[in-house]
Amino acid sequence: MPHTPRPAPEWEIDEWLNTEAPITISGCRGRVVAAFAFQMLCPGCVQLSIPQAAKAYRRFDPGDVMVVGLHTVFEHHAAMTKTALTAFLHEYRVPFPVGIDRPSPDQPIPATMHRYAMQGTPTLLLIDRQGHLRLQRFGHVDDLELGAMLGRLIAET
Amino acid sequence: MPHTPRPAPEWEIDEWLNTEAPITISGCRGRVVAAFAFQMLCPGCVQLSIPQAAKAYRRFDPGDVMVVGLHTVFEHHAAMTKTALTAFLHEYRVPFPVGIDRPSPDQPIPATMHRYAMQGTPTLLLIDRQGHLRLQRFGHVDDLELGAMLGRLIAET
Amino acid sequence: MPHTPRPAPEWEIDEWLNTEAPITISGCRGRVVAAFAFQMLCPGCVQLSIPQAAKAYRRFDPGDVMVVGLHTVFEHHAAMTKTALTAFLHEYRVPFPVGIDRPSPDQPIPATMHRYAMQGTPTLLLIDRQGHLRLQRFGHVDDLELGAMLGRLIAET
Amino acid sequence: MPHTPRPAPEWEIDEWLNTEAPITISGCRGRVVAAFAFQMLCPGCVQLSIPQAAKAYRRFDPGDVMVVGLHTVFEHHAAMTKTALTAFLHEYRVPFPVGIDRPSPDQPIPATMHRYAMQGTPTLLLIDRQGHLRLQRFGHVDDLELGAMLGRLIAET
Repeated sequence: MPHTPRPAPEWEIDEWLNTEAPITISGCRGRVVAAFAFQMLCPGCVQLSIPQAAKAYRRFDPGDVMVVGLHTVFEHHAAMTKTALTAFLHEYRVPFPVGIDRPSPDQPIPATMHRYAMQGTPTLLLIDRQGHLRLQRFGHVDDLELGAMLGRLIAET
Repeated sequence: MPHTPRPAPEWEIDEWLNTEAPITISGCRGRVVAAFAFQMLCPGCVQLSIPQAAKAYRRFDPGDVMVVGLHTVFEHHAAMTKTALTAFLHEYRVPFPVGIDRPSPDQPIPATMHRYAMQGTPTLLLIDRQGHLRLQRFGHVDDLELGAMLGRLIAET
Repeated sequence: MPHTPRPAPEWEIDEWLNTEAPITISGCRGRVVAAFAFQMLCPGCVQLSIPQAAKAYRRFDPGDVMVVGLHTVFEHHAAMTKTALTAFLHEYRVPFPVGIDRPSPDQPIPATMHRYAMQGTPTLLLIDRQGHLRLQRFGHVDDLELGAMLGRLIAET
Repeated sequence: MPHTPRPAPEWEIDEWLNTEAPITISGCRGRVVAAFAFQMLCPGCVQLSIPQAAKAYRRFDPGDVMVVGLHTVFEHHAAMTKTALTAFLHEYRVPFPVGIDRPSPDQPIPATMHRYAMQGTPTLLLIDRQGHLRLQRFGHVDDLELGAMLGRLIAET
């Protein structure tokens, strides 16, 4: 986890589920942000990434770590609608806020996914208390490693 | 697995995926049929039942055991459409034929699910070489137990 | 599981644990025998084979299937003594009978392991109701496959 | 993980395996120490604790975190000898140093286990860079939680 002081670009979200108020990166200043980009029909996301996010959401003090999901649909758009996502979150009992990444008018990749140049799903973003993007990782990150990175970021003041 | 010689009622399928020709119970006479009723947004189906069906599909000689999935949607109908199911089968690399249980005009339970009085998903049906329903089980069945039941049914002539 | 009508040679056991009376292959005539050869310090045995044997022991009618373990020590003899095995069976709550394969006077391979020319541990032996060796497999056998083989053998009369 | 500045008492080890030089808590000053107390015939240790320790050993920089095992035998002493432990470490490919907790002359509990008043195995000890005992936990600790605690302790200077 090299310290690259690049500010995390703000995400572009059409709508938030599982939360009453929209969540912005700038509004999380002072807290660590763990954002899990996923698709509801991505097997690796369903088996590994979403359960890990749920565990992190329950384990960490929300004053220390803000856990969110980003639904970054870049394929099968007709299948992964807001209606389908809502049913999915209900059936899988996903407890954390999920933002729907804004569809792009002219390409399959949605706006936030494009802005961060994500390679696919799942992708993990870790943002420090100052709003810097400290990790962007495509693929699954082991629990021990994720815990260690979060522990270090939490310790920064 | 008590031997109750009740004939398995024919299923009612709107459309088959992953197969060129429709599959009927009567057409499977002479073979054992293992039918896995599921919903694509049912976590227990996705984690346990569909991988088990895929394993059975690959393990047994198709001349001995016909493995099929039945998409028995009784909730979240707007989310679990044919389009969504097609994407799901593709992403999860489901190799076996899947029939879409015919929606009922006047109730949420589809036709085959209603006819068999299934309690929910996943539900397993085992039908013997003579077309008799030998097992109907709601919930997950352990691999060892499923294997033993199939082995016994295969041995019947 | 080809039907090779070779009689299963009798095993040579120094001592039985978890059973009041010694068990012989000839004494099991009329029942299927599933014998799991293992070593208490073999990781694959501990993680996969012994739990599978315990599951089979609990699942099948003892009048149909006799499940036994064979402690076939061919390495680390000073570590895998009867005293150590007894502690192991207690700590891992192994419920089925375990026979200690008779040490050979002049080689590390014990008598039964040598007689069956086993390649290592775990090794599974399946013996049919007539006392024929129907399967000998080195390495782990999937639950679904084991169940199917047992189901077929149970169905033979 | 409350900050209780109690110094971690030195352990008493009869012999070290998997390391050329003995390891002392005082000699680890400046590094975080993660000590996993286990018994080679404790199922929870074998299934969860030792694989976790091996993962931590491989994941963290040894200049940051010193991972050790402590073989704290308090039952089945005749089965869990040094000879048996050596075979176990070989078969399970345990990569980290393991110290044999010194047997007590007059009771089954060995010296270090007694000094720390451990309740059983597995038990995890986390010691910070200043040599303070920051966590003592009986039972398994989830990877995410262990990672977070180690991350925080690593960040302390």
